[in-house]
Amino acid sequence: MRLTRFTDLALRVAMRLAVLDGTQEQPTARQVAADVAAPFTHVAKVVSRLRHAGVVEARRGRGGGLALAPGAGEISVGWLVRELEGIGDVVGCEEEPACPLRGECRLRGELRKAQEAFYATLDPVTIGDLVEGPQGPVLVRLLVGRPGEA
Amino acid sequence: MRLTRFTDLALRVAMRLAVLDGTQEQPTARQVAADVAAPFTHVAKVVSRLRHAGVVEARRGRGGGLALAPGAGEISVGWLVRELEGIGDVVGCEEEPACPLRGECRLRGELRKAQEAFYATLDPVTIGDLVEGPQGPVLVRLLVGRPGEA
Repeated sequence: MRLTRFTDLALRVAMRLAVLDGTQEQPTARQVAADVAAPFTHVAKVVSRLRHAGVVEARRGRGGGLALAPGAGEISVGWLVRELEGIGDVVGCEEEPACPLRGECRLRGELRKAQEAFYATLDPVTIGDLVEGPQGPVLVRLLVGRPGEA
Repeated sequence: MRLTRFTDLALRVAMRLAVLDGTQEQPTARQVAADVAAPFTHVAKVVSRLRHAGVVEARRGRGGGLALAPGAGEISVGWLVRELEGIGDVVGCEEEPACPLRGECRLRGELRKAQEAFYATLDPVTIGDLVEGPQGPVLVRLLVGRPGEA
């Protein structure tokens, strides 16, 4: 059972930016890519999607870089994962060749319930929650001030 | 969010065999492959795994074929999906290059809880449940007596 690599990277990027408290320099997409150990081209696509979803904002020019959008620390991880993963089937019911059993399949409904339970577990968790508590400061030490390598 | 193609096929095969009530001819793996619209080579591997897990039995010779193992209608779908999917991370925390945030990551624990909620939803559902009710007879009409094409 897997989320897409795209969602994986989006969650890493959101966590990476959530540790910034406004006193640190805003990282570039290249720095963030290095910090989350992913190719820049992939991270650039993820950042574009996160900007479109209102999770990330980018400031251009001197002192510019990436940051969470204002209030984005309150965004639900469940909401974000739904946005990124969609609500398609967790198995290939309709993919060619479509499953011949799908017309009368009770499994499909059970898998949808299970998928919803997965998302519902993440609904009350916010992006900010992911870096609160003991983790936050450690993540800051891990990441901030260590220039990324592109 | 996806289960593997292997799990998808295993669930199809289990449903396909669950509609047999003992009065019909047992299908061969080739017939089952045609019935679930999957390549024979893949279904053969799935059947081998399901036999190993005690879900399916195969009788050789004249009148032989595949069937659910005795009592396998009571096997939990949640148990079967756990067996097939394993309990690895739903994202690639440890894959090379490993995620630099993993040491202090709160997300990983939340994703594990969500994964467990997914499986727990399927725990009370049995393989037999999937073909009970109105679906069962329709599946039988869909499948049984229609020779598979290999």
